[in-house]
Amino acid sequence: MITIPADQLKRQIAEVYRTWGMAEAHIATTVELMVEADLRGIDSHGIGMLPTYEQYRREGKLNVTPDIRIVRELPTLVLIDADHSLGHVPAEMAMRKAIAKCHETGVAIGSVRNSNHFGAAGVYSTMALEEGLIGICVTGTTQRSVVPTFGREPMYSTNPIAFAAPAKRNRPFSLDMATSTVAVGKLKIAERAGKELPVGWVVNEAGRPETNPTAALDAKPKRLTPVGGTRELGSHKGYGMAMLVEILGSILSGSFVGGRDLKTEQPGRFINVGHFFLALDPAFFRGEPGAFEADLDALIDYLHETPPADPDRPVLVAGDPEAEARAERLAHGIPMTDRLFEEVREVARGCGAPFILEAA
Amino acid sequence: MITIPADQLKRQIAEVYRTWGMAEAHIATTVELMVEADLRGIDSHGIGMLPTYEQYRREGKLNVTPDIRIVRELPTLVLIDADHSLGHVPAEMAMRKAIAKCHETGVAIGSVRNSNHFGAAGVYSTMALEEGLIGICVTGTTQRSVVPTFGREPMYSTNPIAFAAPAKRNRPFSLDMATSTVAVGKLKIAERAGKELPVGWVVNEAGRPETNPTAALDAKPKRLTPVGGTRELGSHKGYGMAMLVEILGSILSGSFVGGRDLKTEQPGRFINVGHFFLALDPAFFRGEPGAFEADLDALIDYLHETPPADPDRPVLVAGDPEAEARAERLAHGIPMTDRLFEEVREVARGCGAPFILEAA
Repeated sequence: MITIPADQLKRQIAEVYRTWGMAEAHIATTVELMVEADLRGIDSHGIGMLPTYEQYRREGKLNVTPDIRIVRELPTLVLIDADHSLGHVPAEMAMRKAIAKCHETGVAIGSVRNSNHFGAAGVYSTMALEEGLIGICVTGTTQRSVVPTFGREPMYSTNPIAFAAPAKRNRPFSLDMATSTVAVGKLKIAERAGKELPVGWVVNEAGRPETNPTAALDAKPKRLTPVGGTRELGSHKGYGMAMLVEILGSILSGSFVGGRDLKTEQPGRFINVGHFFLALDPAFFRGEPGAFEADLDALIDYLHETPPADPDRPVLVAGDPEAEARAERLAHGIPMTDRLFEEVREVARGCGAPFILEAA
Repeated sequence: MITIPADQLKRQIAEVYRTWGMAEAHIATTVELMVEADLRGIDSHGIGMLPTYEQYRREGKLNVTPDIRIVRELPTLVLIDADHSLGHVPAEMAMRKAIAKCHETGVAIGSVRNSNHFGAAGVYSTMALEEGLIGICVTGTTQRSVVPTFGREPMYSTNPIAFAAPAKRNRPFSLDMATSTVAVGKLKIAERAGKELPVGWVVNEAGRPETNPTAALDAKPKRLTPVGGTRELGSHKGYGMAMLVEILGSILSGSFVGGRDLKTEQPGRFINVGHFFLALDPAFFRGEPGAFEADLDALIDYLHETPPADPDRPVLVAGDPEAEARAERLAHGIPMTDRLFEEVREVARGCGAPFILEAA
């Protein structure tokens, strides 16, 4: 495994975007948010997406010089048209707007349409923490990979939910989860290890459990399950949460579902992803400053004190793994597979960008 | 199975509350919302709760003549102190306030503290539909029954999430789910049927899967799992969603977690449940009236058209089962087990209320 310092990764991605003709301000924001996902250990949503973004650009699905504009703005909300930008810049703009408004109103929403993949949802929800706020982020997606309960074909994607809330003594609470049982990356790990998949991760074209990792990965389209895995274990709940995401992310903003217009049932020239951001100021509710943070600290302590089933594996609170990965990766670099390293080299070559990553 | 017309159930519950000395206006609201849960088939959250409410009252955990008051009010939010009322009246007040405010501001929140069990969360989220709004409701709870991932003791409860959004041609989208894999009622059904529980529903005192339904039901406290069931199938996601609920319901409002003060680790004289309600007006985002509803109709059609694994079992959309139960039960009455029928008779006798239910 190769490890690369975060700054070197940022410079590399920036070199690629420069060849695209992206504005320097957009490059700076996008690179920062992509590598933030890598720092948190969310490997699938940082530099790992660069080859896909390059493919979208070549296919004309990305506007690299977008005119991102505010369609509608009120004291509590903003609707932004991303003009088919890569998602990071309009997403950050919407979340920052929601945060600023929330200081005046207690709660505010940013909605984005005509956007694209924006990286990791948790990167946006946690922006609220810097100002003592609760942050929520959900997003629609670019493709279909998850099969609704009782179905046999994928209709939507891994529709993530991110939720962050500020503590004081403890690390903040920070949930960042796909509403599918697992991500595709877990199938690859099982395949490499030569292991069968557990029943409940994937279904086959008949809607029955698929336990062969190679068959699961080769299927076009892939057929992941909603959290819960099977109806018996509550997959209808994961499916329901995914639709909450779809409604707030895609339908509220007027976007596509899984890269297609539901009315015409056609994919568009662009992908038209929608995002949803909410900021909420707990001080408006609790009055007393610090009261919310103190109570959340008590909740986090309480959860950490749960008697564990295995004494060597303590009960965690959402955000713990990401915080540990971040400290480790800031100190020792971000691990990359040889394959991703070569894919990034290929992207750079294809764009005419210098390849500056150095395998340590 | 006995079936009782909804109106008769309402009159019976009202007779009990009258003996408690509850105000007529509070009785009217509470009875309506309880029986609405029964009509939707959420049997555990309607009249089935009456024996528990009576027990709370006898134990001094309920204030039957509460002074429910607004602690703080702004254009976008209201915080209500329920004065240890049964939850239905303060919950309805908070949701109605959020709805009214939302028409002016696009988004508004109602938060309630010092409350109690309020019935079914979906009864409140769907109030938003009557005015063309999106509604969200989550709530803290009165006891502990769910074990966090990697744990062996229950730390929180079934922390429900309800989310409703208005369509036009179709029934609205209406999700009302516990964040546990299953409710206790499912264990009772398995026990009666003499079936083992699936791995992932319940754990034992060592945190390992419990598959014996009688052992699962006899355990004090009960040890349900978060949605996902096991770590391998994503129970950390169900646990994370449950904490989102706990933070918005309990921590934001300044309430207890599972009936105890986390700082003193003591139960109080009262239970101090917190609720959270959000109303959101999609017209503020979409501008064009009906645009949101038309797109949600397209999403609902699309989901209903999912190729099913079993042709006789079509893919459903959240709210379908409740809508079907409601039509059936309005026409033919609400089914009650013999046992619940006798329990209600016992409650009435204990309070000195007339028993007016008639087994058809």
